[in-house]
Amino acid sequence: MFCRDQLPEPNEWTQTVNGYAAHGGGGDVLNGGTKLMDLLDEPVPGVGTYEDFNTIDWVREKSKDRDRHREITSKSKESTWALLHSVSDAFSGWLLMLLIGLMSGALAGGIDISAHWMTDLKEGVCLNGFWFNHEHCCWTSNETTFQERDKCPQWKSWAELIIGQTEGAFAYIVNYLMYVCWALLFSFLAVSLVRAFAPYACGSGIPEIKTILSGFIIRGYLGKWTLMIKTITLVLAVSSGLSLGKEGPLVHVACCCGNILCHLFTKYRKNEAKRREVLSAAAAVGVSVAFGAPIGGVLFSLEEVSYYFPLKTLWRSFFAALVAAFTLRSINPFGNSRLVLFYVEFHSPWHLLELVPFILLGIFGGIWGALFIRANIAWCRCRKTTRLGHYPVLEVLVVTAVTAILAFPNDYTRTSTSELISELFNDCGLLDSSKLCDYVNVNASKSSNELPDRPAGHNVPSGLFIPSMAVGAIAGRLLGVGMEQLAYHHHDWPIFKGWCSPGADCITPGLYAMVGAAACLAAMTSKWVADALGREGIYEAHIRLNGYPFLEAKEEFSHKTLAMDVMRPRRSDPPLSVLTQDSLTVEDVEALITETSYSGFPVVVSHESQRLVGFVLRRDLIISIENARMRQDGIVSTSPIFFTEYTPPPPPSSPATLKLRGIMDLSPFTVTDHTPMEIVVDIFRKLGLRQCLVTHNGRLLGIITKKDILKHMAQMANRDPDSILFN
Amino acid sequence: MFCRDQLPEPNEWTQTVNGYAAHGGGGDVLNGGTKLMDLLDEPVPGVGTYEDFNTIDWVREKSKDRDRHREITSKSKESTWALLHSVSDAFSGWLLMLLIGLMSGALAGGIDISAHWMTDLKEGVCLNGFWFNHEHCCWTSNETTFQERDKCPQWKSWAELIIGQTEGAFAYIVNYLMYVCWALLFSFLAVSLVRAFAPYACGSGIPEIKTILSGFIIRGYLGKWTLMIKTITLVLAVSSGLSLGKEGPLVHVACCCGNILCHLFTKYRKNEAKRREVLSAAAAVGVSVAFGAPIGGVLFSLEEVSYYFPLKTLWRSFFAALVAAFTLRSINPFGNSRLVLFYVEFHSPWHLLELVPFILLGIFGGIWGALFIRANIAWCRCRKTTRLGHYPVLEVLVVTAVTAILAFPNDYTRTSTSELISELFNDCGLLDSSKLCDYVNVNASKSSNELPDRPAGHNVPSGLFIPSMAVGAIAGRLLGVGMEQLAYHHHDWPIFKGWCSPGADCITPGLYAMVGAAACLAAMTSKWVADALGREGIYEAHIRLNGYPFLEAKEEFSHKTLAMDVMRPRRSDPPLSVLTQDSLTVEDVEALITETSYSGFPVVVSHESQRLVGFVLRRDLIISIENARMRQDGIVSTSPIFFTEYTPPPPPSSPATLKLRGIMDLSPFTVTDHTPMEIVVDIFRKLGLRQCLVTHNGRLLGIITKKDILKHMAQMANRDPDSILFN
Repeated sequence: MFCRDQLPEPNEWTQTVNGYAAHGGGGDVLNGGTKLMDLLDEPVPGVGTYEDFNTIDWVREKSKDRDRHREITSKSKESTWALLHSVSDAFSGWLLMLLIGLMSGALAGGIDISAHWMTDLKEGVCLNGFWFNHEHCCWTSNETTFQERDKCPQWKSWAELIIGQTEGAFAYIVNYLMYVCWALLFSFLAVSLVRAFAPYACGSGIPEIKTILSGFIIRGYLGKWTLMIKTITLVLAVSSGLSLGKEGPLVHVACCCGNILCHLFTKYRKNEAKRREVLSAAAAVGVSVAFGAPIGGVLFSLEEVSYYFPLKTLWRSFFAALVAAFTLRSINPFGNSRLVLFYVEFHSPWHLLELVPFILLGIFGGIWGALFIRANIAWCRCRKTTRLGHYPVLEVLVVTAVTAILAFPNDYTRTSTSELISELFNDCGLLDSSKLCDYVNVNASKSSNELPDRPAGHNVPSGLFIPSMAVGAIAGRLLGVGMEQLAYHHHDWPIFKGWCSPGADCITPGLYAMVGAAACLAAMTSKWVADALGREGIYEAHIRLNGYPFLEAKEEFSHKTLAMDVMRPRRSDPPLSVLTQDSLTVEDVEALITETSYSGFPVVVSHESQRLVGFVLRRDLIISIENARMRQDGIVSTSPIFFTEYTPPPPPSSPATLKLRGIMDLSPFTVTDHTPMEIVVDIFRKLGLRQCLVTHNGRLLGIITKKDILKHMAQMANRDPDSILFN
Repeated sequence: MFCRDQLPEPNEWTQTVNGYAAHGGGGDVLNGGTKLMDLLDEPVPGVGTYEDFNTIDWVREKSKDRDRHREITSKSKESTWALLHSVSDAFSGWLLMLLIGLMSGALAGGIDISAHWMTDLKEGVCLNGFWFNHEHCCWTSNETTFQERDKCPQWKSWAELIIGQTEGAFAYIVNYLMYVCWALLFSFLAVSLVRAFAPYACGSGIPEIKTILSGFIIRGYLGKWTLMIKTITLVLAVSSGLSLGKEGPLVHVACCCGNILCHLFTKYRKNEAKRREVLSAAAAVGVSVAFGAPIGGVLFSLEEVSYYFPLKTLWRSFFAALVAAFTLRSINPFGNSRLVLFYVEFHSPWHLLELVPFILLGIFGGIWGALFIRANIAWCRCRKTTRLGHYPVLEVLVVTAVTAILAFPNDYTRTSTSELISELFNDCGLLDSSKLCDYVNVNASKSSNELPDRPAGHNVPSGLFIPSMAVGAIAGRLLGVGMEQLAYHHHDWPIFKGWCSPGADCITPGLYAMVGAAACLAAMTSKWVADALGREGIYEAHIRLNGYPFLEAKEEFSHKTLAMDVMRPRRSDPPLSVLTQDSLTVEDVEALITETSYSGFPVVVSHESQRLVGFVLRRDLIISIENARMRQDGIVSTSPIFFTEYTPPPPPSSPATLKLRGIMDLSPFTVTDHTPMEIVVDIFRKLGLRQCLVTHNGRLLGIITKKDILKHMAQMANRDPDSILFN
């Protein structure tokens, strides 16, 4: 939310792609067959890599990996060492998952402990050692009873330390001031660290991770600096009391771990597609440690984050998520030796009739979610376009100050958000000290095995200011308490007959709170309502706001246009720039490269026939010609360039020929001009293409790139097509 | 397992597809643009449908649905009625899910109740009414205590009824005989019903459902007869005591429900792709009702059954699975008002060290699973090739008799398998009457809130004969009891220190049983071990055994062949049969249809240029020409056929021209001859193609069909390519 200048200005790096030609080639033949490698026995360094802020070619990356795998497998029969290498290669994926799980779990544990400590630091300090948080401080003390475990003499509030008073208006003001000052200090540190060292560390990072997983390259976004700064500033931001969850950022932290650990294994370091498989598992790990829910993490990754999710990563993701959850549990930040963040135990199964209030909660969640997304996007757009966005540090400090000033007076807002939610989920038993369980204990004299009857006290809180889940949990708890009171006072009503006997525990407000929270995140009714109000999730909205080249896999393309309506060149444009397979010289090609900015060129048999032979990338062409001029004898400006399989022997006096079939993609994807765009979009999504050539009756006619498709989709939805910035 | 003659003999219906040409066209332009429909204003009936035992064209089906959706949306602005129609169309998917959930849940409940009753009928009958099962019979009796709830005077064993004795060798023999007779009767009825009325109702049906979901058509496999007979025979087979689970067949039952209910909605009745979306949700419903696990059902459907799983069906599947589970719960067959089949409550969290025995269980599960698959396939192959398979009724009766004879003497095998498993999962408390909890109650005098100490009694059973889960559960329980005894007798060992204090309940054998059962189904270590022994699941093995055209989505194609190595015609074959776009007459085309058996023909500009224009299906061609000869004036054998957009006006005396551009697929998929087969396989899988044309430098060269790919894959794996039977 507080991010703005994290990416370079668009015109710095889109200048080479503003035409209609494409980055990238669609095939893998680069390493495909020996007969293609007649010239380039050693692949020229740099051929087959990508520039920053470009989209990878999934087909090529996957083919590269299969080639590597084939080579290892075929070698494995030759020697024991090669066999061992092959086995270790096969298990490296699982090992990597183990490491990611361990590292992310450990980091999440560290973040939890630090944030807990620093949140308490805003209120006071422990005399036994300043590194103890409030709870630990009182654990080490022997003088506390179970009932008052948060009051012990070792823990001093700031007022007590500074002016020696614990009660009274002056002490309250001192505590208040210290609370606000610490909050401001933490948030100032956080925002300064991010700005100074790692601009990518800001925000939740999920929109960018979605885009990266779809095949985009943002160098450094998942690097070690980002990881370090994000970890530190996340602790600071959470401790400052800002209304933000650490769940989104934990996904970013886990993905950074994944990306960094990928460097240990050649298989993943060198292959952008394989690395993205690991990253989508890492996203599942992030959710797993954030909520203590391994299966939930895998489902989240599947539904929300992953773009290309081969089924085999399902098991790996689940494994990594489990490992991370266990690591976190061993560090035991929640102190109850359960895996989950919000552990709830309910004693009574729920009744079918309770579906009605649950559905009401769902509708509330849906409306609330849709409104939140709209308000958030409106605010971000406002920051992008007006002068408001020019003072991010000031903005953060003002928001922190306002939050701290509003939050301190109320007990529930003063603690961290996740503590509040977990208190809302609570089922009230006899031992509960929570004020939420302030029922009039009419029958405290009964045997201690029974639950109290429940006429309400007068302390149910409402109207707080906290993130989505808390809002849902509060709404749910309110409704639950309402239902409970209804059932208590009217247990003779027909609907309660046979379900709630008097004095029995038939409605669980904590369950309502949980359903409410779930509804505000993603549940079923909410989903319908929110879909009706606007299909776009908050991450997609942010992706669009930033102009990332993200082709949504879930959205249906429902227009009736054909490939010929989208392809470049348009009817009024000059014809497509192509190379011919056997009639160009080095200087012709160099001139074409200088004159145009297209990042790839189709190769045809001849200008007259326009029959397609292959596709060459600009980057590969430049590198290969430079390399040949330096290393290969007799290559001069007048040397002919051949893309054919067999080259005629050059006449004795003429310069040496340059054979470039090796860098040509021999299997570019083609569609006919009559192909409906819905099919083209489908192909792009499912195969992860960057561009596709268009033919008519066997002749090359034009080209469609991913950017062309996104622009076309924007136009069809009456949005500005120039909002798509990247290629 | 007892299925053989369920499908017609291959040569009856493969005769039309034994060439190299394909069934099917790759596009949707049939209903695509008005300009293509200049002749065929009304689509000719039959064009665009499929024959039995053929593969559908996903791309075309999905395009048809998008066209339909576009039409409804555009009309919805015209009138209120059309708007209502559009809204009801949008919600019909959810309504359908609701109906499937209700119907499957109700059927599953009925099956459970009936099977329970008939299983008890083998042992005796209730005097209060023969329709009560043992448990219900004794519920209605007032004379039973909680401890002996399965003994009441109203329930008479057969010996008691027939000879008036309950004890003694003679009574035992009478009970034994009756038990075996009932079992034989049930299994005879089951096998006769299947053979007489619905041969498709046999087996678990999951291999066939996987194949259907991948796009194959088997008419009647999911029809109402199959549903009826399968439901009845499932009850009979389970009651007969055969070692089979009802979980697989329940998936088939749920899919039948889904398919039948699809007929209520035009959207799903008429579109094979949409119907398969519903079926994959129905598969999730089946697992959900079988195990009471909605999320597990969705994951099973995702991992095992679904071929093409758009993410939006994830939510629908989950919704339907929930509805089904609730319906089943309302019918309440397990009598404990919980959703799950095996409800286990464990009091102590498990320790990290317990991972070691869990991993051992995993290894056991993996080995056991791999062996089971091999043995099963070997037996099926043996039945297919030898005379053994000619007497299925006899085979079933023999197996039933042997099972019944072996099962009766042992209490644990006499009950149904699922009861056994649920008993194994049990955690032993004080109130447990199960013999598995036969510990020496050394401290029964202690207060009733404590659990008993656990030196073992002498009754732990072993060596039983039951399906996978039970085997896993038994192995797990054995290991668990072993661990428990180890911890009890050696609680001073270092590893148990600080984990098991004497007398505390630190190891839960029921949990071990559950882990064991899970391991034998699919869990993590098991998966690795089983993968190392052979990657193929039992369903895939059966698909291969039956020669279904199933292109496995998870298996990597790892060979280095190119499209030109796989395409037809081979180098020695005659050239590809093609149509030209403007130089053929009706009789030329009819001759080509008669001479060849290919099910589709590419259309080219001319024989000389071989530039591809489109693709026409044999079926559509025959229907259109017949239709034109009957209905259109002046169409005779010498009428020219045009596939071009503009046809020249015919000379005055010549016959009328037949314009067939409307039935031509204008966007056939093409790849170049140099495309690696791994990419071709990927395209076929992800887009659901039936065939793809191969070009070289823009000229048409050949064709690759799904069957060609499957044959090629079989050849590469050193299997018989002719084992692929269908197209």
